[in-house]
Amino acid sequence: MLDVLTTPLRSLLRQRQSGHSLPAAFYLSPDVFEADMEHIFGKHWIYVGVEPDVPEPGDVAIFDIGKASIAVVRDDDNEVRAFHNVCRHRGARLVTDEKTTVGNLVCRYHSWTYNLGGDLIHAEHMGPAFDRSCHGLKPVHVRSLEGLLFVCLADEPPTDFDEMAKRMGPYIAPHNVRNTKVAFQSDIIEPGNWKLTMENNRECYHCGANHPELTVPLFAYGFGFAPEEMDEFDRANAERYGCLIAKNHADWEAEGLPSREIDELDTMVTGFRTERLPLDGDGESHTLDTKAACGKLLGDLTSAKLGGLSFWTQPNSWHHFLADHIVTFSVLPLDAERSLLRTKWLVHKDAVEGVDYDLENLTSVWLATNDQDSELVGLCQQGARSPAYRPGPYSPNTEMLVDKFVNWYAGRMAEHIGR
Amino acid sequence: MLDVLTTPLRSLLRQRQSGHSLPAAFYLSPDVFEADMEHIFGKHWIYVGVEPDVPEPGDVAIFDIGKASIAVVRDDDNEVRAFHNVCRHRGARLVTDEKTTVGNLVCRYHSWTYNLGGDLIHAEHMGPAFDRSCHGLKPVHVRSLEGLLFVCLADEPPTDFDEMAKRMGPYIAPHNVRNTKVAFQSDIIEPGNWKLTMENNRECYHCGANHPELTVPLFAYGFGFAPEEMDEFDRANAERYGCLIAKNHADWEAEGLPSREIDELDTMVTGFRTERLPLDGDGESHTLDTKAACGKLLGDLTSAKLGGLSFWTQPNSWHHFLADHIVTFSVLPLDAERSLLRTKWLVHKDAVEGVDYDLENLTSVWLATNDQDSELVGLCQQGARSPAYRPGPYSPNTEMLVDKFVNWYAGRMAEHIGR
Amino acid sequence: MLDVLTTPLRSLLRQRQSGHSLPAAFYLSPDVFEADMEHIFGKHWIYVGVEPDVPEPGDVAIFDIGKASIAVVRDDDNEVRAFHNVCRHRGARLVTDEKTTVGNLVCRYHSWTYNLGGDLIHAEHMGPAFDRSCHGLKPVHVRSLEGLLFVCLADEPPTDFDEMAKRMGPYIAPHNVRNTKVAFQSDIIEPGNWKLTMENNRECYHCGANHPELTVPLFAYGFGFAPEEMDEFDRANAERYGCLIAKNHADWEAEGLPSREIDELDTMVTGFRTERLPLDGDGESHTLDTKAACGKLLGDLTSAKLGGLSFWTQPNSWHHFLADHIVTFSVLPLDAERSLLRTKWLVHKDAVEGVDYDLENLTSVWLATNDQDSELVGLCQQGARSPAYRPGPYSPNTEMLVDKFVNWYAGRMAEHIGR
Repeated sequence: MLDVLTTPLRSLLRQRQSGHSLPAAFYLSPDVFEADMEHIFGKHWIYVGVEPDVPEPGDVAIFDIGKASIAVVRDDDNEVRAFHNVCRHRGARLVTDEKTTVGNLVCRYHSWTYNLGGDLIHAEHMGPAFDRSCHGLKPVHVRSLEGLLFVCLADEPPTDFDEMAKRMGPYIAPHNVRNTKVAFQSDIIEPGNWKLTMENNRECYHCGANHPELTVPLFAYGFGFAPEEMDEFDRANAERYGCLIAKNHADWEAEGLPSREIDELDTMVTGFRTERLPLDGDGESHTLDTKAACGKLLGDLTSAKLGGLSFWTQPNSWHHFLADHIVTFSVLPLDAERSLLRTKWLVHKDAVEGVDYDLENLTSVWLATNDQDSELVGLCQQGARSPAYRPGPYSPNTEMLVDKFVNWYAGRMAEHIGR
Repeated sequence: MLDVLTTPLRSLLRQRQSGHSLPAAFYLSPDVFEADMEHIFGKHWIYVGVEPDVPEPGDVAIFDIGKASIAVVRDDDNEVRAFHNVCRHRGARLVTDEKTTVGNLVCRYHSWTYNLGGDLIHAEHMGPAFDRSCHGLKPVHVRSLEGLLFVCLADEPPTDFDEMAKRMGPYIAPHNVRNTKVAFQSDIIEPGNWKLTMENNRECYHCGANHPELTVPLFAYGFGFAPEEMDEFDRANAERYGCLIAKNHADWEAEGLPSREIDELDTMVTGFRTERLPLDGDGESHTLDTKAACGKLLGDLTSAKLGGLSFWTQPNSWHHFLADHIVTFSVLPLDAERSLLRTKWLVHKDAVEGVDYDLENLTSVWLATNDQDSELVGLCQQGARSPAYRPGPYSPNTEMLVDKFVNWYAGRMAEHIGR
Repeated sequence: MLDVLTTPLRSLLRQRQSGHSLPAAFYLSPDVFEADMEHIFGKHWIYVGVEPDVPEPGDVAIFDIGKASIAVVRDDDNEVRAFHNVCRHRGARLVTDEKTTVGNLVCRYHSWTYNLGGDLIHAEHMGPAFDRSCHGLKPVHVRSLEGLLFVCLADEPPTDFDEMAKRMGPYIAPHNVRNTKVAFQSDIIEPGNWKLTMENNRECYHCGANHPELTVPLFAYGFGFAPEEMDEFDRANAERYGCLIAKNHADWEAEGLPSREIDELDTMVTGFRTERLPLDGDGESHTLDTKAACGKLLGDLTSAKLGGLSFWTQPNSWHHFLADHIVTFSVLPLDAERSLLRTKWLVHKDAVEGVDYDLENLTSVWLATNDQDSELVGLCQQGARSPAYRPGPYSPNTEMLVDKFVNWYAGRMAEHIGR
């Protein structure tokens, strides 16, 4: 493994075996991590939060992507803007709270003052030769997909965000993200490389043995299966599940809710996938009783029986849109062996805690599921450190989306560092 | 020192001055540490524990050697086997408890299941092309020397283990390790490089000033001395001590207890040394009153006055076999500046705590001694970091075994990386 | 920034833009840190403490400069001497307490014993071939500037210490450091590179917005200002401040107290600067009521209205000499991103706590100021980590001394590593 860790990245990528987990260095090496931060997180659209994080003019929310600290600001014209959170004088961090509301952005060190458009509007004692207009905050690209905020640190972001936005917009719009509030946010640090967190998210092969809460609302038959291992009983159930989905898709689309699968996980620079799927039990929400957790439904929705719309993006997010609430996840790498998983629960902005929803009921399925996944990610990280670790085979029946994540990752890296 | 730290290992080895402590980089450099783990801990027989750690079929004990996690298993045929503790699917750590008892080894992630022989016997959804027989657990070489367990991570372990086993067997057998139980285990993290822990173990020049408890049962005249510094009184005592040893060796060997020194510390790949030595005071055990700590003697021993049989192995263990109990030590490097010292106290498996032995009485001498040594190792580690550190001279009278450890280490490294 | 971090130091120095903060690698890179420790802290006079730290023969004080641990000792002839704190036998750290009093320096490991002159006077069991005289403690250069202790780790220290001592001696002597005691010492770890701590110390542009306590005794007009930004009122105040200084300097010098500015911050290898400045309010001391904190004045001083004599040295100290007490600061780098700031408050050695001075009153201004500065340094360190950090411009009116620090640093580095 020592040799593998010092192998140049390009040859590591060539060593990768299709349909298998990655060589250990991809999960362990600080050099690969730096390359990930430069080429993946530095050059793609990264999901960081939602418009309800900055609902009013003057609201500021800080998001860290690796070593970059980004201030997302709602300006006086109600536009969402983003800047690097670094003073242009002596380089001090400008905003230190995760969320705040300001008139201007004022550096604590020497009181240099920037307006919400990032212009330097005040700097004392700098002398007549000093040109303020050259010392504004450095802007960061930011886009809102129906209220979901994506930033890109590159000078020239991938242009296919527009295509994703166009195709995904109609799926998400009925849930009206902009009209929600953040009812709860959970930040946990998973003890593993960010790619292990993503791989864990992209399959439910592990759900049956590990997620007693999540498997209440989810159909086991949605996790994938090897047809040759099924008995009569299984086959009948699987067939019923297939019919159920086809019927639901037809019904929901007739109601104006786009539901059919789009899978561009490995076919676009801004890779994504979506599908609306029915829920088990009474099928309303991701709760322990599968009933809606919030009495006020989202947007103009009138029925809670809409299943769950899921939306996955490369490299770092997934989202579940229920009729009554939204759960949205972003993965932000901390170092080669630790990753921040940030989860937000959104409800209708007029919903009242204790009246329309109970916070524990709203959050319990995913809080438990996240903790379980975090432990599994940690086991894989520990395993990858072993000199006996070897890339293992993905199941062709239940780990296809893991394979697509890894393919996308390897392809994007190769694109940037050369093949 | 900066230059020293970046000097290639081969030239560092050539810089080593015979009869002196090592250049600082050997205690500090992460690169040297990686080389130590690869060439010393990766290619030699490493003492990890005892058969009583896995007394029954299905018992599993986990030992970490650097980044390798090893599952030592007693299989259904009562054989001790060892495997890398890594699932062959997605690489998750398989067994997470230090000790457990199982029917099969089941991975928590996706329930891949291995029998106690390491064969993959169950893996769902993998499709018809998947070959289970290629995905068994990776085996690790394991050998038992009269109940002391040694593992070797290399494909081809040193062959002279057999010679050590043949010569040491008769010394150890009378203490019947297999018929003991682990009465207590202590794990402490010493704040120093593993070689400083070993050097500390290989001399008693420091005992008089630092180990008030240990010097109760040990004879000061066994620590070595400079003949030219002795007065009349010292010389008389030393002479008496020499006679005592000769007489004891003759008596014990007549009783069928091999006792005379064997020293192959620097002359075999699997370097070792042994000798049975009398104890001070009434001379029964390593206790504060020098009396046996356990009423039930080991094996078929009938007398407690057998002194102590010591057994040292390169690179990482030492053991003291008393008539009533065994204390056994393994050093497992954690990083360049931290080492795990694991100590086990073994008593007859039928001995009952509180009846046959008192745990505090059994363990107090070595618990105190370990703590004292750990502090001394820490002082050396701190000193080695100083740019003023220079290798210092070993005493030719009291530090001969330290010199042999360092010679063995340097020789083995040179063997593997070239001279 | 990745590229910058791996750029060779020489080319990093060439990238530096005059009048601007340094490229980020100077604050972040472990390699630059090692070079700083080797060329700046390893080859210049480093302020570490005061003679009152070792008032009596046998007193020992330990100071760490990077990986070097240095024992400053007052020997039996009342001379201050310094040695590397490393035993010449197995390299153990010799003295483990920060301050102690000893007859000889005895290593705990094997009792090797050195006298206060560093000679090895006792080492058992080493045999007849061993030469004690080759195994004395390694000496370190130490100099006292009127009681302020500077050490130099180089074999040949900069020779211009003598010039600094000759010119500064008359300024400091009236405050009689040798006749003081350490009333209090504060050690805080600032979360930033040592150069950020120094840059923070070398300007008061940030004082108005950040130091409510310190700006009680200090005149705001002493912080520098942009003349073109001043109104009528400001200009009149600034003029009055200029007259006040001129008058004070004349008066104090007539009383035998050298007061006028000397600035050799960027013009000597042992760079320094001094000036005696009046205080605001009633102008006696650095206290919240600007009155003397200690009833017993220093040396032979009879008036408390002497303003404050400040003394700054490159690379790591500053000092404020008041009539009633002295506050003295040393910065000792811990790693690229953490620095120890050690502050000592000295009062007349016969002053009695609770009678002549109240400890809280004595220390409150600088304890608060240090905490505020530590936070500001942390903000700059966080900012420097951002890929958006760019060196920013220093104010030509208020940050001239920061610029001189950076110039001195860059010049000294270039001198040692080549341009």
